[in-house]
Amino acid sequence: MKKSKEVKNAAGRMIPVEVNGKPVIPYQGVGKYRPTGRRFAPKLVSCADYPADGNKLVSSLKEALIKAGLKDGMTISTHHHFRDGDIIGNLIFDIAHEMGIKNLVWFPSASFSCHAHLIPYLEDGTINRIEGSMNGPLGRFTSEGKMKGVGVLRSHGGRYQSVQDGEVQIDIAVIAAPTADPFGNATGDRGPAACGLLGFALADSQYAEKVIVVTDNLIPFPCVPWQIQGNYVDYVVKVDKVGIPEKIVSGTTEITKSPDRLLIAEMTAMFCDEAGIIQDGFSYQAGAGGTALSIGNFFENILRERKIKARFIRAGSNKYPVKMLEDGYVDYILDGQTFDLEGVRSMRENPGHLNTSPFTSYNYHGKGNFASMVDVVILGATEVDVNFNANVVSHSDGYLLHGIGGWQNCIFSKCTILPIPLFRDRIPIIVDDVFTLCGPGELIDVIVTERGIAINPLRKDLIKKMKGSKLPIKTIQQLKAEGEAICGKPQKPKTTDEIVAIVKWVDGTVIDAIRKIVK
Amino acid sequence: MKKSKEVKNAAGRMIPVEVNGKPVIPYQGVGKYRPTGRRFAPKLVSCADYPADGNKLVSSLKEALIKAGLKDGMTISTHHHFRDGDIIGNLIFDIAHEMGIKNLVWFPSASFSCHAHLIPYLEDGTINRIEGSMNGPLGRFTSEGKMKGVGVLRSHGGRYQSVQDGEVQIDIAVIAAPTADPFGNATGDRGPAACGLLGFALADSQYAEKVIVVTDNLIPFPCVPWQIQGNYVDYVVKVDKVGIPEKIVSGTTEITKSPDRLLIAEMTAMFCDEAGIIQDGFSYQAGAGGTALSIGNFFENILRERKIKARFIRAGSNKYPVKMLEDGYVDYILDGQTFDLEGVRSMRENPGHLNTSPFTSYNYHGKGNFASMVDVVILGATEVDVNFNANVVSHSDGYLLHGIGGWQNCIFSKCTILPIPLFRDRIPIIVDDVFTLCGPGELIDVIVTERGIAINPLRKDLIKKMKGSKLPIKTIQQLKAEGEAICGKPQKPKTTDEIVAIVKWVDGTVIDAIRKIVK
Repeated sequence: MKKSKEVKNAAGRMIPVEVNGKPVIPYQGVGKYRPTGRRFAPKLVSCADYPADGNKLVSSLKEALIKAGLKDGMTISTHHHFRDGDIIGNLIFDIAHEMGIKNLVWFPSASFSCHAHLIPYLEDGTINRIEGSMNGPLGRFTSEGKMKGVGVLRSHGGRYQSVQDGEVQIDIAVIAAPTADPFGNATGDRGPAACGLLGFALADSQYAEKVIVVTDNLIPFPCVPWQIQGNYVDYVVKVDKVGIPEKIVSGTTEITKSPDRLLIAEMTAMFCDEAGIIQDGFSYQAGAGGTALSIGNFFENILRERKIKARFIRAGSNKYPVKMLEDGYVDYILDGQTFDLEGVRSMRENPGHLNTSPFTSYNYHGKGNFASMVDVVILGATEVDVNFNANVVSHSDGYLLHGIGGWQNCIFSKCTILPIPLFRDRIPIIVDDVFTLCGPGELIDVIVTERGIAINPLRKDLIKKMKGSKLPIKTIQQLKAEGEAICGKPQKPKTTDEIVAIVKWVDGTVIDAIRKIVK
Repeated sequence: MKKSKEVKNAAGRMIPVEVNGKPVIPYQGVGKYRPTGRRFAPKLVSCADYPADGNKLVSSLKEALIKAGLKDGMTISTHHHFRDGDIIGNLIFDIAHEMGIKNLVWFPSASFSCHAHLIPYLEDGTINRIEGSMNGPLGRFTSEGKMKGVGVLRSHGGRYQSVQDGEVQIDIAVIAAPTADPFGNATGDRGPAACGLLGFALADSQYAEKVIVVTDNLIPFPCVPWQIQGNYVDYVVKVDKVGIPEKIVSGTTEITKSPDRLLIAEMTAMFCDEAGIIQDGFSYQAGAGGTALSIGNFFENILRERKIKARFIRAGSNKYPVKMLEDGYVDYILDGQTFDLEGVRSMRENPGHLNTSPFTSYNYHGKGNFASMVDVVILGATEVDVNFNANVVSHSDGYLLHGIGGWQNCIFSKCTILPIPLFRDRIPIIVDDVFTLCGPGELIDVIVTERGIAINPLRKDLIKKMKGSKLPIKTIQQLKAEGEAICGKPQKPKTTDEIVAIVKWVDGTVIDAIRKIVK
């Protein structure tokens, strides 16, 4: 791995001046960097070079990749709507390996345990690096310094931004689609492997040089809804199985039963209520974890009691927000990815359950996006520091084990709350300085733990509103001291100087570097 | 008007080498020209420069235009979904005139009689020229050589292509929207002035430097469906009335009662049937004129009798295809513009009634489009010549009185049929050489008149299929002779050398020039 000169960015983090041979822009602060260029402009094409009858079928993924000109050094993109049930992501690199292609860049919207299959290809040079979330085994592989190139972590919005801005130029996008027609129109909301939507592949379809749609459910034109538009697609491939829908359900999708987590959830909901956030027509985003789902449940109870309704829920949907929509407690679900098959069904059937994309929801280099309009978002974190800076990608042992997802984008909401336990496995979560900086403290408004709530001193309005509350409002320093009193001061993981990955901010600048762990 | 050097293009037409000070590319034949550049790339922007709460409201259209930097020489775009009920198109130039702005280019997707209001602004130099369809009075004004710049006529697909390719760079797009939210999400399918869809404004929203949404029905975020995405919008303006929905219903929207036209319609339907085009799962496009609607009616009867259904109808929708959809004779309507309020209702209510755009349907510089996949399209023409070339923009007196609409795009269908009377007002329609060339004969397959049907000699397959038919199959020369025997040979309109407008082909090349009429 090439050593690069380093500079200190506006967050005080040392970051490389170039990554994978290209110069990068250091983080300059929230809302400080202004892009100066133009959107990436794909080459013009002509209908004269596409079949007039709209039939773009080719016989296999291998044939499609060959027709698309697969060669050494290309950037290949995939989406992660199948989550741990992805098949096609692995198949592409099996083919590339078989063809002897080297030095590819894999640009997934996220990777999962199933992609451990790719480790031999990372070792033998078929794949040079992953630019995208590295959940689980690929993160560990990266943290151990084994990836040839430097990993680049981006939020969902940052991924769209990087493609739109031409920072990442996708040579071939492969879009696994639960239903498609021979023209390339594709949808995720129906078919035997229905996964809900295909929003994470939107940028890929719009900006990639070549676009391949792979489906196991080919229907006559038109495939409706055309979540991916065939007018962007070069080739269509029919396979036997495009993904494993049962494995879309990843992580926790049931309300927590842990007493500590239920307490945190209840405190969070009470905080939102006392702060005046829960009003008729309000909006919120709660993730798919057990605590977040429980908070949504508390919100629903408040809405029911007061006979009011929310205007919209931003989701990751599953059966809980779907039921709220069907019961009339919310007008709309604005959904970025479905986390269970009830979410898939609802998106297919209910015109109030809308599929969104990182373009509408998260792209920071647009004329606004949905994320900053949400009244309150509930998010997780692996660590928070006394300046409210937060880490979501690395664990207490320093290993890169999570993707950023939409987290960086969501913290632009009107009120960002992190409900977190004060410690996990006897390691305190509130620290002096986060190991990896993913989100600047100025965008994190409230920390809720089982032993107290800390409000960011910048949010004088919230502090004022909570004066006289019976909730245990404390300073973040108090919370840190309580955690350390129980567990002791945590040790920082040991690293070498070698940079194995970088973390991008929503505007494409580099907010932090991740270094090789010393075992 | 500046005189330009002229060259002969591949259709044998003399065209200028430059238009409005910019070089143009002569037409090279169907599918011959290949674009070499890249799509137009709008400047990058940052959410940091847009309101975080998503509220982009400004107090008036004038304020929005000033904020958008309105100045001399700019290109201002509007859409025509309100047809003759447009209000905002005129209002923009009232404001520009009041501000003393000069030399604007108006880039509408079409203009109508109501836009005669703009003639004083064309005379006083507020507007330099119109690039877009000029139906009625503005066409006459242009034909008389009164417009300062040279008009540029494009098909709906050509308009998208010109924006996508950067041939036309829109400075300010003003999008009149029947419903919108403060973020700029907008829809045409609901609200007091509901006009169906906003597809003609799609390119404008994606590529214009500044985008203004004007509505008389402002609702809380999110406006659903977001036919126009707020992420592309700079300013939102609330007005009292955004358009006159009663006037959306323009032209003929009832089945013809004329015996001659009914005969032509029946012959067309019989031809399609005998040629084997009407099968289970077939697709067609019939326009909104009385003859075309009548053909649709014949198709419906055939489907009913045989208990089969069409896969899709490409429309301009009105109550007739809507009823077919609701009665189950077709799976989908793929709709580009609604021609009556039943079309609007259906689009709002029926998930099988889909809104499309020139991008999906017509853009020739894409990876295919819908138009070439349609089994049969029924279109009109003002003139056809013995080589099957057709004219849709100028009348027999030479005046420019019609837009191209989607006509050039639609003739890429698998079978293009022009059902036309042999003469109108005692002037024959079939001529030696069309006055204005809009569509090359090789794409026109069949001419149906009340006195016979001519099949293009290039369509040997159709000729073979119709061997032994009882329908009056004739040569186009025979049809021409019959027309001339009744009405005499028509005189060509007299023109000067001065070029007042050009006609673009679907690929942005220039297929013909239109010259000033000698009265």
